[in-house]
Amino acid sequence: MPGEALPPEIAAKIHDSFARQSMMRSIRAEIVSLAPGKVTLVAPVLEKFRQQQDFGHAGLTFALGDSAAGYSALSVMPPEVDVLTVEMKINLLAPASGHLVAEGRVVKPGKRLVVVAADVWAEDDGKRRQVALLQGTMIPV
Amino acid sequence: MPGEALPPEIAAKIHDSFARQSMMRSIRAEIVSLAPGKVTLVAPVLEKFRQQQDFGHAGLTFALGDSAAGYSALSVMPPEVDVLTVEMKINLLAPASGHLVAEGRVVKPGKRLVVVAADVWAEDDGKRRQVALLQGTMIPV
Amino acid sequence: MPGEALPPEIAAKIHDSFARQSMMRSIRAEIVSLAPGKVTLVAPVLEKFRQQQDFGHAGLTFALGDSAAGYSALSVMPPEVDVLTVEMKINLLAPASGHLVAEGRVVKPGKRLVVVAADVWAEDDGKRRQVALLQGTMIPV
Amino acid sequence: MPGEALPPEIAAKIHDSFARQSMMRSIRAEIVSLAPGKVTLVAPVLEKFRQQQDFGHAGLTFALGDSAAGYSALSVMPPEVDVLTVEMKINLLAPASGHLVAEGRVVKPGKRLVVVAADVWAEDDGKRRQVALLQGTMIPV
Repeated sequence: MPGEALPPEIAAKIHDSFARQSMMRSIRAEIVSLAPGKVTLVAPVLEKFRQQQDFGHAGLTFALGDSAAGYSALSVMPPEVDVLTVEMKINLLAPASGHLVAEGRVVKPGKRLVVVAADVWAEDDGKRRQVALLQGTMIPV
Repeated sequence: MPGEALPPEIAAKIHDSFARQSMMRSIRAEIVSLAPGKVTLVAPVLEKFRQQQDFGHAGLTFALGDSAAGYSALSVMPPEVDVLTVEMKINLLAPASGHLVAEGRVVKPGKRLVVVAADVWAEDDGKRRQVALLQGTMIPV
Repeated sequence: MPGEALPPEIAAKIHDSFARQSMMRSIRAEIVSLAPGKVTLVAPVLEKFRQQQDFGHAGLTFALGDSAAGYSALSVMPPEVDVLTVEMKINLLAPASGHLVAEGRVVKPGKRLVVVAADVWAEDDGKRRQVALLQGTMIPV
Repeated sequence: MPGEALPPEIAAKIHDSFARQSMMRSIRAEIVSLAPGKVTLVAPVLEKFRQQQDFGHAGLTFALGDSAAGYSALSVMPPEVDVLTVEMKINLLAPASGHLVAEGRVVKPGKRLVVVAADVWAEDDGKRRQVALLQGTMIPV
């Protein structure tokens, strides 16, 4: 799939869906890139979404990673189909600070289920480190 | 553990930690009950934390469930110890709307790791349904 | 669902399916009890399914827990439907020795997917301890 | 880490540990390759480890994938340290038949925990397809 362009109607569908997610606006997430089976999102670690040690809350990292994974699934679906998260597993590798970059990808597309994964990176002070790894399942609806 | 009261210093520690989590304030979460190994949180499904179909975003459900699970672990730790999420798996069972109630519990305490779980319920229009099930690992730090 | 009896044709279907699983025969698993949405299996920790420290291999605990969860799903399906594991998460709590008892249960039935869980216990030397906790998804086929 | 050779004492430790796992002998698994943070195992889908549709049981795929992931963690540990599985999530992508090839890798090493992943492939009739994806945590002991 690398190198292919996303059909314009699918790109438009993803942008529409993203704009309807108030969660994405609230965390100030943006779409960095869209390709078939691969979607990258970015969001700052805002002061209002922190945990008790002042790092980004796991829920923030999860929200961005889950959405990146979900939109990667949506990118390989027919135009009239939406997707929902069935289940998602996250391993947290390092504290989240600075900006988060989430790269979602389709591991296995399917009509009944789509298996997805995502890596989430933190870019802070010129350094980049992986903060999370997600693996899960999306369902076309 | 049911029936036991939480030592006042541990209850105070949890309230302090909770107050430091800006994420909990942002989603308007509140502590409903604290007991040794069992913590219940509640939060409304605010308009700003929705997904594309106008239900609560999976990241919101995750944030509340993960925090309930984390505080259940903290409730069985010595006073000077904090906990962080190592990994968490969520299965989403139904759309989130109305109010969310997250019941976190310790499955197995330990010095090196604490295995936890959480159930998240949505209360909407007088009805209650389970929206998610979480299972994961906390690490004392 | 507790207290209900399993329809005889569903019980027969589970026994047939179980008998066709050569894995269950190889690990010498047996069905202890069948109820709607709840299935208990037992198996010894045979010498040939150990890990490097001579405890039961995680794959053995997983096989028994996954099958208990799967049959709990099958117990709530129509007679002509089979189920397959979509995904399963296991947390290992203690070393496996003696006999394993796996209690599988349906968390949420559904036409498209069934969310399941299982607890696995080790009974050794008159003592009983939980060795694993599973949470996953089955798909009707 | 790619391209580096594994220190002979670490390679010997892995071979010793593998030889002590009766589970690996029982499923006729073999070590295909060892590199720092990367271990590949292979095993046939024996007739005695099947599920009800005569494909390899999820427990077999899990056992091989978990061991590949565990040995990838062991490959980056000091000589005197062993590792145990804390938790593991598996997504099953396709039926298992023919031979299974499991590629385990370290995602993030650490003194307290090691995050690992594994891909499992089935090679059957000259074709190769991915049958599973694992993500989990190992603990040094």
